[in-house]
Amino acid sequence: MTINDPVLLEEVTAAFMEYERALMEDDIPAMDALFHEAPTTNRYGVGEVLYGIEEIREFRKGRGGSPQRKLGKVSIVVYGETCATADAEFFRENSERRGRQTQTWVKFAEGWKVVSAHVSLEGSTH
Amino acid sequence: MTINDPVLLEEVTAAFMEYERALMEDDIPAMDALFHEAPTTNRYGVGEVLYGIEEIREFRKGRGGSPQRKLGKVSIVVYGETCATADAEFFRENSERRGRQTQTWVKFAEGWKVVSAHVSLEGSTH
Repeated sequence: MTINDPVLLEEVTAAFMEYERALMEDDIPAMDALFHEAPTTNRYGVGEVLYGIEEIREFRKGRGGSPQRKLGKVSIVVYGETCATADAEFFRENSERRGRQTQTWVKFAEGWKVVSAHVSLEGSTH
Repeated sequence: MTINDPVLLEEVTAAFMEYERALMEDDIPAMDALFHEAPTTNRYGVGEVLYGIEEIREFRKGRGGSPQRKLGKVSIVVYGETCATADAEFFRENSERRGRQTQTWVKFAEGWKVVSAHVSLEGSTH
């Protein structure tokens, strides 16, 4: 299996950065377009668990935008031709806790889409 | 792309449950064998960020075992032939907070391995 094919890595990195832009601007259509439209797409947020694209959409509509944040370390890895992970640290304005975001990206006919995401703030217990 | 090929779904589910058994018994060799041995394998835990299999190994050795927990809802999805996600809720003994664990599994020549994991406890803020 090829790890980090350079063309695919560039594609996933561009999609990852586009999602970050959309999140910061509360560009809901762009965020929606980057998540796989299926009942199997899940997102665990800091304070919620969401199963299926419909629950994710409802959450986004009611959220009023994400807190502003800056990315820290980002680790994107492509496995083979159609699977990638993006692990990223982030730091929210007015918060000293480190945030962590992981996404699994899958390449479908229509392009790279997030199929699973998990966002949390680092805690003090194991 | 085939979603949830039944044979592959069974394979990933078995690997997921074996990891849970190993975690509860602090069976470090078994946990280690289920994570991809590479510097690209990452794990975000409740209170730590770990990059590469060596950091993950050091953490496990020093941890003294995970808190005991019971699984809640589990959502495992296989994308194509070599990529799967496992999203799971869990509840730790003596804790009222919901835990969430996501894993990305990739099928290598030597079998299904976790390449990225994220564990957190649900928080009160978004």
